Amino acid sequence: MPFSLQINRESARPVYQQIAAQIKDQISVGKLPPGTRLPSVRQLAESLGVNRLTAHNAYMELQADGWIESTVGRGTFVIEQAQPLALLTDISMHNGSEGALINLEPIRQHPTLRSLAYANPDPSLVPTDDIFGMLAGLRREAAALMGYHSPQGDPGLRVALTDLLRERGVEAMPDELMVTAGAIQAMSLITLALARPGDAVLIEQPTYLGLIHILRTYGIRPIPIPMDDDGPDLAAIERALRADQPRFFYTIPTFHNPTGTLMTHSRRVDLLSLAARWRLPIIEDDIYGLLSLDEPAPPALKSLDEHDLVIYISSFSKLITPGLRMGYMAAPPGMQRRLLSLRRAADLCGPAFLQRAVADFVTQGYLKAHLRRVLPIYRLRRDAMLLALDRHMPPGITWTRPGGGLSVWVTLARDNMMAVYHAALARGLAFTPGEAFLIEDGGNRHMRLCFGAQDSEDFDTIIGLLADLIHAQDTYPDDRVTPSLPVYTPMV
Amino acid sequence: MPFSLQINRESARPVYQQIAAQIKDQISVGKLPPGTRLPSVRQLAESLGVNRLTAHNAYMELQADGWIESTVGRGTFVIEQAQPLALLTDISMHNGSEGALINLEPIRQHPTLRSLAYANPDPSLVPTDDIFGMLAGLRREAAALMGYHSPQGDPGLRVALTDLLRERGVEAMPDELMVTAGAIQAMSLITLALARPGDAVLIEQPTYLGLIHILRTYGIRPIPIPMDDDGPDLAAIERALRADQPRFFYTIPTFHNPTGTLMTHSRRVDLLSLAARWRLPIIEDDIYGLLSLDEPAPPALKSLDEHDLVIYISSFSKLITPGLRMGYMAAPPGMQRRLLSLRRAADLCGPAFLQRAVADFVTQGYLKAHLRRVLPIYRLRRDAMLLALDRHMPPGITWTRPGGGLSVWVTLARDNMMAVYHAALARGLAFTPGEAFLIEDGGNRHMRLCFGAQDSEDFDTIIGLLADLIHAQDTYPDDRVTPSLPVYTPMV
Repeated sequence: MPFSLQINRESARPVYQQIAAQIKDQISVGKLPPGTRLPSVRQLAESLGVNRLTAHNAYMELQADGWIESTVGRGTFVIEQAQPLALLTDISMHNGSEGALINLEPIRQHPTLRSLAYANPDPSLVPTDDIFGMLAGLRREAAALMGYHSPQGDPGLRVALTDLLRERGVEAMPDELMVTAGAIQAMSLITLALARPGDAVLIEQPTYLGLIHILRTYGIRPIPIPMDDDGPDLAAIERALRADQPRFFYTIPTFHNPTGTLMTHSRRVDLLSLAARWRLPIIEDDIYGLLSLDEPAPPALKSLDEHDLVIYISSFSKLITPGLRMGYMAAPPGMQRRLLSLRRAADLCGPAFLQRAVADFVTQGYLKAHLRRVLPIYRLRRDAMLLALDRHMPPGITWTRPGGGLSVWVTLARDNMMAVYHAALARGLAFTPGEAFLIEDGGNRHMRLCFGAQDSEDFDTIIGLLADLIHAQDTYPDDRVTPSLPVYTPMV
Repeated sequence: MPFSLQINRESARPVYQQIAAQIKDQISVGKLPPGTRLPSVRQLAESLGVNRLTAHNAYMELQADGWIESTVGRGTFVIEQAQPLALLTDISMHNGSEGALINLEPIRQHPTLRSLAYANPDPSLVPTDDIFGMLAGLRREAAALMGYHSPQGDPGLRVALTDLLRERGVEAMPDELMVTAGAIQAMSLITLALARPGDAVLIEQPTYLGLIHILRTYGIRPIPIPMDDDGPDLAAIERALRADQPRFFYTIPTFHNPTGTLMTHSRRVDLLSLAARWRLPIIEDDIYGLLSLDEPAPPALKSLDEHDLVIYISSFSKLITPGLRMGYMAAPPGMQRRLLSLRRAADLCGPAFLQRAVADFVTQGYLKAHLRRVLPIYRLRRDAMLLALDRHMPPGITWTRPGGGLSVWVTLARDNMMAVYHAALARGLAFTPGEAFLIEDGGNRHMRLCFGAQDSEDFDTIIGLLADLIHAQDTYPDDRVTPSLPVYTPMV
């Protein structure tokens, strides 16, 4: 019974406490899920090479703290309800872009935490019954969908996607599309196709934390491009083009994550003309393009692309649910072969029957009906969050007023965001620290607040609490005052 | 209406024929799926910058050849039944490891081709109803399974997997496991974790073509290790360890793909002791470990691993169906963090609700019942193929007699396998040429024949046809006679 625990006999800490602490850790991060049967005291003792009393004491401590339960005759099991406090400690330990990805799971699992941390649809609004209905409808033809399929994805879904792309002003044929395991797989494949370790890539400052994680994991050098109210700073892009020979520019022109802002039409035109002069590939992340909350969103950047320089990425993660793990991209013909090779090396292809179910969901009008239902709800929540910010935030604090997407970017008056973050966690409130979206030290003063997953009537309380915590922290001296580079800060 | 077609006005070939040929290609490889609406003649002409008569002539040719149909008032559509001959031409054009992966789709789509090409379960034996039953059973708790989840995979499935691993002699805790998008994603993540472009990796000769594709795609140098009847040549591994500093050795010890052979116990012990001396990580692909057709398979190599050097990989692709895209791995604790980072960069996590459905399929006994049903069928098919080989094959041809897995490795008497391959395709029979499993020129004389997807009563005819084709080719001079390295050739 190999328990993957490390015992340090040199340590001053008693061995039974070492064992108990590591089992606690494994339970709190979900590695030993509720209901897992643990080895008997005898087995545990033997596998660790400790005496039975030590193993017994470890279990006694875990039981006293409410982590496990033993029943005579049945054995020892992880209890069904995880420990909220342990989860909070775990959450507060992970920082930066990967930290925010690691925290997805414990924040979701936490039974009482109120979370503004992730730009995800509200789980209670996911059209689960309709999706399962589509799946059930495939039962008869499922055998034909159960083998390996095209790495580009189900043809029926690609045909349906051409309609979704047309709504964003993008004309594409089914053979120019690839269905991916979320938008992040598209980003991963494109990055591997265009850049090698040590290469430079341009990203907005701030930007989507998943892309930052991809670049770091593959050893690629991200170069920050500052943003103003109209979009990315083109002069900075041109300087970087001269200095760093970047392989591509990653941008979120429509309802930017984390700021929620829109790139203006003239900035889009100028960006494309700069890209054409330098033959700079652009990755357009349009994942929020159909989540417009006021007037319709401007067409995608790709719709203005006359030189096949824009690779368009989007996903069903925000439109339906991230649990489908289904995104898509439209890449120029010259890149298709390399992207298909990389897809075959990554996972061969996606689950065709799930793709067909989503195709049915789109073509039978369920997606449109779903968006008609949820967009007004997200609009109410966005309005409620902005109203609460107006009402509660101390002077000197600024935030964006997004016309779509799921998040607001808040800039504090003083460099004490991390202190506010830990205070908020201790009060049962989670958001994502700004540093997760920044690749250099951007000052300890930004936070992303997502409004998608809380009821609109709760924002007054939640933002009120956050404002109190900020106010309390402002009575302490600043943590730090000199950011190394400018980060987008809304003026209002 | 941007049709991704290339027109070469310098070419002697009329433009309308260029257009028609490219549309045919796109239909035949499934890029323009049946039912796709094509642009109108006017739209096509405008988007390509040709006159309407040219566009009209292209459509007339496609219509005459039975590729598309036009209905006045409705438009022009790709016909529902793909062209078998065009598919065959396409299949015969793709060679090597990636070619075999590319051909998965057209071979599956072909309406009349008899295929021995892929080591997959028979689609008609997939327990689709049971899988859909498990999915339907999740409907009520599905909302909770519809967000982002752990990159390690659903905890319930990981608990269920510990039982499957125990059947292979491997003791692992749920936190040591990762559920992946097929075994190939596990191979991809491990390769990215352990090797960088230019690094060397050891592989058996022959070996699984997907792993060869991964290494080539990531710019990693595969070094071939010859095999004998007992397994890989350890002296060759030791020479390569001295000369090339390989990052790992990839092996399929149990029911090897493509040969179907077993590594002996003593070779396993010696391999592990060599690996321990050199600290050489071993990737054990055990994807056929539970597909034993005679006596039970020997325990996995990992069960003998005392130094945490073996990374164990398996999958549900052969046990249930590849359409689930679900594999799993057990990696040493020291690699977990890097593998999780790479998984987050690849696709964040898999679809949790599908993982939970598979967990239910395993824990409720459906997997065991399914294997009890299909293993005797595969045994009959294996026996029928071996009997037909005995009966029909000309002298000088040898083949393996696998005790499990889904494939037989055949070595011809002369170097004319590719000629046999093309002749077989022309007669409606597909297999996979040996070169797909080889990284250097191994001689044009090997083929993999898979027995999983044909009825046992058909093998006499199929193998009889193949033997006739071999006999006919043997009257021609050899294509080529000097392979650059030894390839495993069964003695019988």
